[in-house]
Amino acid sequence: MGTMGFGCIEATEAGVGAVDYGVITTPKKRPVGERLLTLYDDLSELLSSLAPQWLGIEKLFFYRMGNTILVAQARGVILLALEQHQLEPQEFTPAQVKQTLTGHGNADKQAVQQAVMRELKLEKRPQPDDAADGLAIALTVWHHRHSRQLLPE
Amino acid sequence: MGTMGFGCIEATEAGVGAVDYGVITTPKKRPVGERLLTLYDDLSELLSSLAPQWLGIEKLFFYRMGNTILVAQARGVILLALEQHQLEPQEFTPAQVKQTLTGHGNADKQAVQQAVMRELKLEKRPQPDDAADGLAIALTVWHHRHSRQLLPE
Repeated sequence: MGTMGFGCIEATEAGVGAVDYGVITTPKKRPVGERLLTLYDDLSELLSSLAPQWLGIEKLFFYRMGNTILVAQARGVILLALEQHQLEPQEFTPAQVKQTLTGHGNADKQAVQQAVMRELKLEKRPQPDDAADGLAIALTVWHHRHSRQLLPE
Repeated sequence: MGTMGFGCIEATEAGVGAVDYGVITTPKKRPVGERLLTLYDDLSELLSSLAPQWLGIEKLFFYRMGNTILVAQARGVILLALEQHQLEPQEFTPAQVKQTLTGHGNADKQAVQQAVMRELKLEKRPQPDDAADGLAIALTVWHHRHSRQLLPE
């Protein structure tokens, strides 16, 4: 795998806000063991510093990355890091994320990004796209955890 | 994966001896994340306590375990643990192991086990078979590292 986006949000009485978002990248030219270690170290550091209460993952994430040995190996390392932080990922399909954030399961990327910006009161579109997708999934987890009436529809 | 055998040997002026051998097992009924964590913890503990200088692995090990997502995930965790201990595994096919230990690439399991017992001066056949295979690979690494004339053929 080359790039994995992530997004972290926090819900307080004042509302929901973005805590951090970005991407973990591993250089494709490096040996597999080294790339797996980079992925593990970067993800473990994020999980330790952000200490998320809940965690979501795109259901087809690994499928979309290609059904290769390399991706499955990375998946093993990711599942290990989550287990070490006692996190059980909830899985959402892209359609579920779109439905949750826009009310339409077939919304386009722009509509989802605008919903993310509006809910998190961001002035700029989160970049790169993988990080924006991470925030969208984080919001989806939050919506599914809490009753929707807390947020204006 | 259910079981992974290992074997560790030490070469001193007095000869070559077995330091440890056995298997790492993860219960098939447990969730994947938990099994990957067990594998990682057990393997990491072994690598830390045994602190091997070199490490070999059966070339077709993962293939033989089944070319499944689950096995590839376990492989990712194993490669991670090896990288963390700065070990680059040497790969040997079963035929290479047999050739090295018995002089015949198509030797049967019993002949290989007898060679392992003879070289390591073991009175009993190492059990289970996966652990005996681990010792056989350890000896193969050793033979390939050192000139053969150190050992009586």
